[in-house]
Amino acid sequence: MISVGIVGGTGYTGVELLRLLLRHAHVQVSILTSRTEAGKRVADMFPSLRGHTELEFSDLNVEQLKQCDVVFFATPHGVAMQHAEELVAAGTKVIDLAADFRLQNLEQFENWYGMQHVCPTVLKSSVYGLTELNREKIKQAEVIGNPGCYPTTVQLGLAPLLKGQSGLINTQSIIVDAKSGVSGAGRKASLGMIYTENADNFKAYGVAGHRHHPEIVEALENISEQQGQFDQLIFVPHLVPMIRGMLSTIYVDLTEQGQQKDLQALYEDFYKNERFVDVMPANSSPETRSVRGANELRIALYRPQPSKLVILVAQDNLVKGAAGQAVQNMNLMFGIDEATGLEGIGLLP
Amino acid sequence: MISVGIVGGTGYTGVELLRLLLRHAHVQVSILTSRTEAGKRVADMFPSLRGHTELEFSDLNVEQLKQCDVVFFATPHGVAMQHAEELVAAGTKVIDLAADFRLQNLEQFENWYGMQHVCPTVLKSSVYGLTELNREKIKQAEVIGNPGCYPTTVQLGLAPLLKGQSGLINTQSIIVDAKSGVSGAGRKASLGMIYTENADNFKAYGVAGHRHHPEIVEALENISEQQGQFDQLIFVPHLVPMIRGMLSTIYVDLTEQGQQKDLQALYEDFYKNERFVDVMPANSSPETRSVRGANELRIALYRPQPSKLVILVAQDNLVKGAAGQAVQNMNLMFGIDEATGLEGIGLLP
Amino acid sequence: MISVGIVGGTGYTGVELLRLLLRHAHVQVSILTSRTEAGKRVADMFPSLRGHTELEFSDLNVEQLKQCDVVFFATPHGVAMQHAEELVAAGTKVIDLAADFRLQNLEQFENWYGMQHVCPTVLKSSVYGLTELNREKIKQAEVIGNPGCYPTTVQLGLAPLLKGQSGLINTQSIIVDAKSGVSGAGRKASLGMIYTENADNFKAYGVAGHRHHPEIVEALENISEQQGQFDQLIFVPHLVPMIRGMLSTIYVDLTEQGQQKDLQALYEDFYKNERFVDVMPANSSPETRSVRGANELRIALYRPQPSKLVILVAQDNLVKGAAGQAVQNMNLMFGIDEATGLEGIGLLP
Amino acid sequence: MISVGIVGGTGYTGVELLRLLLRHAHVQVSILTSRTEAGKRVADMFPSLRGHTELEFSDLNVEQLKQCDVVFFATPHGVAMQHAEELVAAGTKVIDLAADFRLQNLEQFENWYGMQHVCPTVLKSSVYGLTELNREKIKQAEVIGNPGCYPTTVQLGLAPLLKGQSGLINTQSIIVDAKSGVSGAGRKASLGMIYTENADNFKAYGVAGHRHHPEIVEALENISEQQGQFDQLIFVPHLVPMIRGMLSTIYVDLTEQGQQKDLQALYEDFYKNERFVDVMPANSSPETRSVRGANELRIALYRPQPSKLVILVAQDNLVKGAAGQAVQNMNLMFGIDEATGLEGIGLLP
Repeated sequence: MISVGIVGGTGYTGVELLRLLLRHAHVQVSILTSRTEAGKRVADMFPSLRGHTELEFSDLNVEQLKQCDVVFFATPHGVAMQHAEELVAAGTKVIDLAADFRLQNLEQFENWYGMQHVCPTVLKSSVYGLTELNREKIKQAEVIGNPGCYPTTVQLGLAPLLKGQSGLINTQSIIVDAKSGVSGAGRKASLGMIYTENADNFKAYGVAGHRHHPEIVEALENISEQQGQFDQLIFVPHLVPMIRGMLSTIYVDLTEQGQQKDLQALYEDFYKNERFVDVMPANSSPETRSVRGANELRIALYRPQPSKLVILVAQDNLVKGAAGQAVQNMNLMFGIDEATGLEGIGLLP
Repeated sequence: MISVGIVGGTGYTGVELLRLLLRHAHVQVSILTSRTEAGKRVADMFPSLRGHTELEFSDLNVEQLKQCDVVFFATPHGVAMQHAEELVAAGTKVIDLAADFRLQNLEQFENWYGMQHVCPTVLKSSVYGLTELNREKIKQAEVIGNPGCYPTTVQLGLAPLLKGQSGLINTQSIIVDAKSGVSGAGRKASLGMIYTENADNFKAYGVAGHRHHPEIVEALENISEQQGQFDQLIFVPHLVPMIRGMLSTIYVDLTEQGQQKDLQALYEDFYKNERFVDVMPANSSPETRSVRGANELRIALYRPQPSKLVILVAQDNLVKGAAGQAVQNMNLMFGIDEATGLEGIGLLP
Repeated sequence: MISVGIVGGTGYTGVELLRLLLRHAHVQVSILTSRTEAGKRVADMFPSLRGHTELEFSDLNVEQLKQCDVVFFATPHGVAMQHAEELVAAGTKVIDLAADFRLQNLEQFENWYGMQHVCPTVLKSSVYGLTELNREKIKQAEVIGNPGCYPTTVQLGLAPLLKGQSGLINTQSIIVDAKSGVSGAGRKASLGMIYTENADNFKAYGVAGHRHHPEIVEALENISEQQGQFDQLIFVPHLVPMIRGMLSTIYVDLTEQGQQKDLQALYEDFYKNERFVDVMPANSSPETRSVRGANELRIALYRPQPSKLVILVAQDNLVKGAAGQAVQNMNLMFGIDEATGLEGIGLLP
Repeated sequence: MISVGIVGGTGYTGVELLRLLLRHAHVQVSILTSRTEAGKRVADMFPSLRGHTELEFSDLNVEQLKQCDVVFFATPHGVAMQHAEELVAAGTKVIDLAADFRLQNLEQFENWYGMQHVCPTVLKSSVYGLTELNREKIKQAEVIGNPGCYPTTVQLGLAPLLKGQSGLINTQSIIVDAKSGVSGAGRKASLGMIYTENADNFKAYGVAGHRHHPEIVEALENISEQQGQFDQLIFVPHLVPMIRGMLSTIYVDLTEQGQQKDLQALYEDFYKNERFVDVMPANSSPETRSVRGANELRIALYRPQPSKLVILVAQDNLVKGAAGQAVQNMNLMFGIDEATGLEGIGLLP
């Protein structure tokens, strides 16, 4: 059994990790920490867990965490980097669901997250956990920066056009019009998040800039091995009155070369061995409810004009966009079947 | 492997059965029928199933169904009774999720469902599938009438007061104020069910009478072994703007004897070995989201006045209230662990 | 023009008052105060008001409020009673939408609201603002305690059985199973109120006791002129995943005398001259959306058993249950047509 | 008083017209027709109208309609054109809320709506009712084609860049990523519209082409007086789980000339005298709930890159996007204040 610690179990990625890991055949969740709830049973906070675990929140104790095989950080940004070095030294693997290990560019990190990075050396050796694109590195990783939810959709939505390809699209005119359910904002007591401010309402947000923009740009540079080609990417997130789910509508200008390619075949071929990425028939419309609760991401392409490709990408932001992908990475790191604990079918309706 | 047939797989209980059975360790879903969709892949109708099954709908063919070990009817009322006799004769078990085998009182059945019963003999030998209350009979049953969703909450909410007890409550003054998510009405194209008629709205319905009333009365008579004592039960269902979930608020007048009993202890003891019934601490408030997608039912008691007991009962109407309980019954009928395929944790948030 | 001040304009009753009063033919809103937002334009906080007002929040200044003809308190409990005496002395009328002037029983007030009442003399001369039942007193009032939302539904739902009547019902066995949209809890940053904790969920709350219980009991005593007859009333509120709307399902035991009465006629007659109370045909089901945004309350009766009456009462908790009724009272106090500013039709869908 | 007839009052634009017109100071609604509901009281179908009207649906009788000053068609496409000629001949004005008088290009009309136009002469003399852009023509019009909801947002969102301007933007690379609440699809019994298929879900739709695309293209050609410049406009509509509300996110490439212009000032100036168009400060985020139930449209601009302008446009699809704009046009046609009956403030929360 893999002994697992979860730091910061009071948020939605925390309870989602528990939902998945408490049913994982090879995992024992040993420790669950919370700064504010130590001593409380997690099932008293999340009643869906009643009958499934007797775990209590404890204070964060690094010595105890070192006894774990792997520690997930489902914390605010800036916590994992405080402890990663010590844990790695003790042979404990780290998977951070916050942003501490997502950006290699320290300037961007400090700029967007308002804090200095405290372990740049660990950062350098960490691996970006977009499973399908970095599988071999993840298998060897000691520290994983689990991708942001929006960046997961954009990378998997664009990878077939960029990875091992060149000249299919205009990389400087990409537009990502993204939509997320409210759980993407986490579990926080703030006026802007209350029911009555979000129900029966729709709006854009983050128009002054969103932290996922630099992550997307850096990731696309890595996928395409082209530096400086994605700076002008436009990213506009919107808030949907629903709990879970994320849909990115990506607009791409095709080059002459791109227009002549069978793009549907390109995508299907690119993902043909992937269990969690579904390339739907052309002109399909992936619905977020089709992946509710499931570690799946669905893609559909269509061509409203010969030179324009529209890519629709749907996922559950808390699963493939967070906790599910983290478990997928853990499975790889421990050499077990990548799908273990992730076979659940989405809840529809 | 248990070979399973599902008749009528285009409704919500059908797709919910598939969600559970496609992940069931001892089941092979062999046949899926639909009057209207024969030849279509079920995953084309329910995109959550993409990648999980290649099953196609076929026409209902009794000869093929006879090859199955068990056939679930997720059909409108009146279909299962057309085929049950023949299937049983062939050694195929039947679990009906509609009402054909819920009421032993033929007059009530004909009155409320507007049709004559065509196999009263099979009905007589069939077993009412409220698992926790009829477990031993279910193990031997050939035909199961799977309970209605509301009746499940009322029976499990009241059973500790009635089964093997007498004189604890006034059986003639029970009030059930019940609330259900919209999926309880099924998957039907009707004006009353469209999004814009139900969102941000709340109302009572069925005030002229609801088919679950006679089922509740008959079931309580059986549980208490007291005939004619529940005729005056009041049952008022309401429609909640949510997809899944059901909460029944049950008001009971306690007798002197009942007032002296430790009712919390009575309930905890009654359900102490039940994996799918959770008696919460007194004064808790079970939330429907705590059982979303899970085969669980939660009960809490409180006493606003010495002579008055309020019983709150929550479940997912499609799981413990329908497909989940049907699978629970199937497990019993085939002698396998009752929880097989039903261990999933609820989706929260 | 009536010069109006609003104290505490940052909550939902505040913005609802503005929606109504900015379109009121005889009103000028002169002052709008907020402890926390002084200097901010109200339209910057509530974008629905953009283009409709240039009002800014100011600090609470009693001297300025004295210049108003009437001051509405849309504040937390305990604020209006600090200023009522001084305002009344200056000839300014007071309408409190919080609880300071709802309960004449000081012990109950202090018990449920956890504070001492600071102006019991003003309280004694204040009038309880359930418009339809206290119209003549309201016309003469200087201070109004505007009713709670739940108590409004219960009083108007039961008044025809109690006012000027006796012996129609068993007053000690009344059950109120009430359901409210989330806006009833106000505009507050708390975890329990965020979107993801309430959407697609249903639950009871306040099972340990709710502040509206003593208000209901005192009000029914006043309506019926029977003391001590309603102590055992059961009140169980529930939270509905919708923004606005409230439905109370009231269960009443009829006496022999009550069973012989034509109750539908009794209700229709009782409310025949009321513009904002609608007695629907028997067996109707009032929907909350039918009064969304409107100062209306709809009632329907049905009789599931000869001795049992079920009364369904629907309103918009922010309008007839709060701001609308407050404006209705203001109209009476200033001798203008009671419906002024309240003629808007509900928003459906 | 203006005598009004409404043909087809059983849909959402019909009931919304009634909500506005029953409170309109200069209107008398005389006739309300329905093919299917003749003889029924409209308040029995739409309970929000109880107490506000005794109108009954009647069969469509052209002789009776001729007695009206104006007839609104809130019907499926193809009905208004059957009767417009006769009504106009009788001196009755016509406002069609369907598509019969939106497209001057007959080929496009027949192509997208699958029917032949039966009165091309009337069409030629009809006026496209985008009020702010065609005000003078509307005043003289006998037949109005009321704009589609999406086209209203796109035209008002782009008009300042196109009307009386040239060379500010690349007209061939416009992208409209549009989102609508479910009421945009009307009031129809179809599986795709039921609550359980839409709640907690988000998706694109109409990817194979949407009828509003040709309307947008033709309208932009007229605004800019540039033919053939907008053919490559990309329009992708999405469905939001909310009742009312529409947000269009429009992406525009600025030319050198456009980049040097103060676009915020351009927009503010363009709409400075418009009561129903609100240009918000730069980098604002218009929310659909800020216009819920109100005849308002809010616009905000931001510039994520020097050459890229993002235009956010919000409205209530049933008001400014349909019935409200129709009333605005009627007011112009009869020479009364354009805002009559449209001053209502949006319902927030």
